[in-house]
Amino acid sequence: MDIQHYMHTLGRQARAASRTVAAASTEAKNAALQAMAVEIRARREALLAANARDLEEARAAGLEAALIDRLTLGEKGIEAMAAGLEQVAALPDPVGEITDVKRRPSGIQVGKMRVPLGVIGIIYEARPNVTADAAALCLKAGNAAILRGGKEALHSNQAIAACVRAGLAAAGLPEYAVQVVDTTDRAAVGELIAMPEFVDVIVPRGGKGLIERISRDARVPVIKHLDGNCHVYIDDEADPAKVVPIVENAKTQRYGTCNTAESLLVSRTVADLFLPEIGRVLAGKGVEMRCCAESLALLREAGIPADRLREATEADWREEYLAPIIAVKLVDGLDEAIAHINTYSSGHTEAIVTENYTSAMRFLREVDSASVMVNASTRFADGFEYGLGAEIGISTDKIHARGPVGLEGLTSQKWIVFGNGEVRR
Amino acid sequence: MDIQHYMHTLGRQARAASRTVAAASTEAKNAALQAMAVEIRARREALLAANARDLEEARAAGLEAALIDRLTLGEKGIEAMAAGLEQVAALPDPVGEITDVKRRPSGIQVGKMRVPLGVIGIIYEARPNVTADAAALCLKAGNAAILRGGKEALHSNQAIAACVRAGLAAAGLPEYAVQVVDTTDRAAVGELIAMPEFVDVIVPRGGKGLIERISRDARVPVIKHLDGNCHVYIDDEADPAKVVPIVENAKTQRYGTCNTAESLLVSRTVADLFLPEIGRVLAGKGVEMRCCAESLALLREAGIPADRLREATEADWREEYLAPIIAVKLVDGLDEAIAHINTYSSGHTEAIVTENYTSAMRFLREVDSASVMVNASTRFADGFEYGLGAEIGISTDKIHARGPVGLEGLTSQKWIVFGNGEVRR
Repeated sequence: MDIQHYMHTLGRQARAASRTVAAASTEAKNAALQAMAVEIRARREALLAANARDLEEARAAGLEAALIDRLTLGEKGIEAMAAGLEQVAALPDPVGEITDVKRRPSGIQVGKMRVPLGVIGIIYEARPNVTADAAALCLKAGNAAILRGGKEALHSNQAIAACVRAGLAAAGLPEYAVQVVDTTDRAAVGELIAMPEFVDVIVPRGGKGLIERISRDARVPVIKHLDGNCHVYIDDEADPAKVVPIVENAKTQRYGTCNTAESLLVSRTVADLFLPEIGRVLAGKGVEMRCCAESLALLREAGIPADRLREATEADWREEYLAPIIAVKLVDGLDEAIAHINTYSSGHTEAIVTENYTSAMRFLREVDSASVMVNASTRFADGFEYGLGAEIGISTDKIHARGPVGLEGLTSQKWIVFGNGEVRR
Repeated sequence: MDIQHYMHTLGRQARAASRTVAAASTEAKNAALQAMAVEIRARREALLAANARDLEEARAAGLEAALIDRLTLGEKGIEAMAAGLEQVAALPDPVGEITDVKRRPSGIQVGKMRVPLGVIGIIYEARPNVTADAAALCLKAGNAAILRGGKEALHSNQAIAACVRAGLAAAGLPEYAVQVVDTTDRAAVGELIAMPEFVDVIVPRGGKGLIERISRDARVPVIKHLDGNCHVYIDDEADPAKVVPIVENAKTQRYGTCNTAESLLVSRTVADLFLPEIGRVLAGKGVEMRCCAESLALLREAGIPADRLREATEADWREEYLAPIIAVKLVDGLDEAIAHINTYSSGHTEAIVTENYTSAMRFLREVDSASVMVNASTRFADGFEYGLGAEIGISTDKIHARGPVGLEGLTSQKWIVFGNGEVRR
């Protein structure tokens, strides 16, 4: 198989289909999404069988349990996919929205129109549900999509792709609007990220290694999410009633998510007041604290069990643990907190706990991360919680799409001019 | 000189300065811009002397007249730079603008805050005035800038940089907020575009060769402008009073600008009606028409001088002439016009001339270019005409900034959350 030729064929087909999808009515796109959901429910048995085949091969190859878990579709997973398609159908269509129209002295009226990006390449790993989720978001935003899933999920992805194609056909949309790469040859990824004539943007979803490799080699723009090293900063004037609930929720509500707090900063003036209680709550939940010298001494004094405490190294300030571990550091107030975050953070999400207006506004303004919060848990950094309805991911880039990326992040805006025969003088 | 070490030093200094500039008040930024204008006027003699040195070396090296012209500053150029700085000072500050705040069911309020990008690298060629213009726009948008001008303008750029630094110092802003690379070693460009830890975005300004090379090799996002192959399409229901003035203005008002029309499409049904008159006007201004077979026959029949007519080749549909030449093609109505544009255009600016509502709206929606116009000259695609006040360039990319890029294009938006102790359930 000539991979370059194959991928260029997919690219050419996607580019052609993207014109039709960009101009498609909201009704047609929604009908396709609804029909996909119907197909997914109707083909439950076939999907489970395809998934079983992938799981069997994965087990035979000795893949680790976490990967097997991500690969498993199950009855619940199938229903969740179908429901997800219906949810995207129910979202408002972002395409064609006209905003900011202003009359200029020349007589022309200038505004902006929201338009699809064109062709989106999605590169993901073992989760087969991404095939349906990503297809739905790309389509609703008026884009064609080329999906490249992990080789472990090949059969599951092809079975889901068949449902997607059937849905497109039912709504009279081009079958090439969503294409799933059906080779496991890794060269396909190399081609997908290097054909700017056919692909407008790449969204990689997966581990850091995958994303770094793609960012390095891509010849087209990448909307990506690297680390989530999120901070909570307890300010001098923090409300005692808010401190512990926010820290506890940000760290322990879920350990494996990118918006989980990984570092806690406490202003030195209130460390005595808050840190012992925080330490007790976290230790009680089995969280290990990696502490600066001062906070370590304070937590030891407060009687936190020794096996929950460890001295932090410089590396801890940068770490995304995705585990019951948190870095703890005392700082000399707001300035040091902001400087620490802007130095060590991955730019995902940071929160301040304070009742002081000026501290809150300075933190919001000066912390250079995708989401910045006052008196709320970092766990809120999420497309659903922000009201986007669905998300294709959370971007730690600054360009184009930042933070949770919903339908709007999969579109662009062009300038439109309403004239009446005006010419330039 | 160790170029990598030198550029990393500039990068580190810029990153540090960017924190201060991002948090700087509007007053401080405006004071710096005003002070730069004062310095530029005060140092007129020194600027002219530095420029004379560059010009002398350029003439000795036998550089072509067009380049010498771009390199020449002159009294008028110096006053224009100073006035440009004052204009940017007078523009509204985009930084800190809070929009789209909505209360969510969880109780949090989510919105967006406009923030600087951070550090912007500008790579340009011989025009020394870019040093002041780009510095002003980057600074007003709250960014630090690293400027790398062409080697021909080195002395002029250093003299302007001294004014910029003096202006920053007068306003108490860090001197590293704007740094001008003072080596002509080309390796400096290679470093500048490959240090994502220090530079957030690159804006190249110059010829296509420079921009293609930078886009290919950059390790950071690039806001760029490639070709401006702009189209005017004369629809079946075009208003006769608008056709000739728009075509004439779009093609002949200036030949060397990126928003000049390079291709004319005419619906077959109205070719007899409009093309002869268009041909007479363009031929009268010395414009050569590169025509499809049908339009060629029609223009010959209409008596257009043979030396103004030539048969078009496939390459003409893609060409950005920047000269008194235009490609002419008859099309089978709106669908073919849109398909032709989406195939051959560089995505810069396209205009339709029509009185038909549905044709106008379909053209606006379906043409995939940065600016799409109804009944107006493509020459309006410009930051000043659109009301942006000033522009750093016109982007033919779809991601982040599209079309004329003003202060807003040099910023990003982060999500902000106003909470009251909310935690996620």
